[in-house]
Amino acid sequence: MSSLNQQLQHAQQRINSSLSAELEAPVSPYSEGAGDNLGRVYQAIQYSVMNGGKRMRPLLVFASADAVLAGRKQTSKSLDLSACAIEFIHCYSLVHDDLPAMDDDDLRRGQPTVHKAFDDATAILSGDALQAMAFEALSRADDIPPAQQIALVKELALAAGPVGMVGGQALDIAATDQRVNLEQLEQMHSLKTGALIRAAVAMGAICAGASEQQRIALDHYARAVGLAFQVHDDILDVESDTTTLGKTAGADIALNKSTYPALLGLSQAKDMAQQLLQQALTALKDFDEHADTLRQLAHYAVTRNH
Amino acid sequence: MSSLNQQLQHAQQRINSSLSAELEAPVSPYSEGAGDNLGRVYQAIQYSVMNGGKRMRPLLVFASADAVLAGRKQTSKSLDLSACAIEFIHCYSLVHDDLPAMDDDDLRRGQPTVHKAFDDATAILSGDALQAMAFEALSRADDIPPAQQIALVKELALAAGPVGMVGGQALDIAATDQRVNLEQLEQMHSLKTGALIRAAVAMGAICAGASEQQRIALDHYARAVGLAFQVHDDILDVESDTTTLGKTAGADIALNKSTYPALLGLSQAKDMAQQLLQQALTALKDFDEHADTLRQLAHYAVTRNH
Repeated sequence: MSSLNQQLQHAQQRINSSLSAELEAPVSPYSEGAGDNLGRVYQAIQYSVMNGGKRMRPLLVFASADAVLAGRKQTSKSLDLSACAIEFIHCYSLVHDDLPAMDDDDLRRGQPTVHKAFDDATAILSGDALQAMAFEALSRADDIPPAQQIALVKELALAAGPVGMVGGQALDIAATDQRVNLEQLEQMHSLKTGALIRAAVAMGAICAGASEQQRIALDHYARAVGLAFQVHDDILDVESDTTTLGKTAGADIALNKSTYPALLGLSQAKDMAQQLLQQALTALKDFDEHADTLRQLAHYAVTRNH
Repeated sequence: MSSLNQQLQHAQQRINSSLSAELEAPVSPYSEGAGDNLGRVYQAIQYSVMNGGKRMRPLLVFASADAVLAGRKQTSKSLDLSACAIEFIHCYSLVHDDLPAMDDDDLRRGQPTVHKAFDDATAILSGDALQAMAFEALSRADDIPPAQQIALVKELALAAGPVGMVGGQALDIAATDQRVNLEQLEQMHSLKTGALIRAAVAMGAICAGASEQQRIALDHYARAVGLAFQVHDDILDVESDTTTLGKTAGADIALNKSTYPALLGLSQAKDMAQQLLQQALTALKDFDEHADTLRQLAHYAVTRNH
């Protein structure tokens, strides 16, 4: 087992245990015993969150904090809550993305999507609930100063909002069956998936008390890695087979989606992925070996086969 | 013009000017010039927010702060941003509630609902964006200490989430065509509309630096007023005519919805509204004349004819 796989497994166990705890018992001044009747929405929330996800964004939160802490210890409360918050946002976006009015997907990770397993209304409401839960979780991250907590809220809210993830989804829908240029493709990805990846790295850095200089370096890393993941995804869609990929190979072409290989050619797309890897590694040059998980993640972004 | 009407108009002008400013130009580290392409979602956001709404929740934010400040001055930044944030949450909930998969409404305030004026995907995304924008707005409320800002985030996130507004919507959907008892009806309303009304009052109090004792008293007020509004709504549905009401009278009965008059009888429902008014006024007994707008709002809740 490679070191990165161990890191991934460790982060998955850590985040899954935090997520389970978060999803356990709803406590609120407004609940007044309503818990039992809210069962269906809670079931949908659990179903959408505890779905065997890779937990890449939580891993980035932890790895970014490790890079900044450089061996120093700190309590893990704000890191774990940040990881939960960003995963809640990611999960809600998948639930809403799969809706019939959006991408209309019946399956996710081989299981019925939330609106298929429950119904459309429950899928909409459970997604809405998850977004609120993300910010509620950050409001409990009180092992760091309140000003840093507010910085977490700002980071996540900007990344999730209309000039972040939601804006990227809107661009993605608008681009379907449209010919987009390289700049437009990059803009769509930088919003739809890039914003939340940058937020994950920034939130880890905020929890660890990063300097401004460290935060800027880590943001350069996050931008490069986020895009590298996407470029390599597009390459895999062309080169890999459906069994290895775990989803339909060639789907992008079939759906007439713009991709990096389609716009650049396969060879230049591969060059671009390598350049992004180098950019990511260069951004980390002032960090010691405690940034190795981030470095391994950058390599993984452009070498994985699924 | 009554004094309350003047207060309402003043609050409406104040909040509409803040909302316009908030909705103007998207600024984000993630935008990178994407603003133009996000046009459709932004149009839908503007359409749903600048819709001539009564702005009852912003008014509660301002009136609650007035009661606590008792004539003292403070900057209005956190109050205005809190008022915007809670109105964003309210507006997003209406957009999602109107969707075909939910209440399937074509009209709101006499205008086509967002999914009718745009499309279902844009309605889902603009609602999602508004929720993120609410928390982003709170992250800029930096004229109060960060710890109080975090208290605002917590208050709004709890009120908007699964044991708040979203939970209430789930209960409302589950209760359609079902016979519910008085306790279940109150629980549904206390979550669906009550939670956000309590949050509005709490957020005004937090911005104004209320004592724990003041916050408890104001929360008693908010619970009573929130429920009084709902009981009187149900009475109006029975007693008023469609022209006065601005929506179809008797709609609750036609839709087979459980209401207070249906469960209690009309006379006892009216008694209940009066008792709630008294509870609201009693809760304010330790506040001076600066709480008069709150008092007038309580009277208004049970005397308005639409």
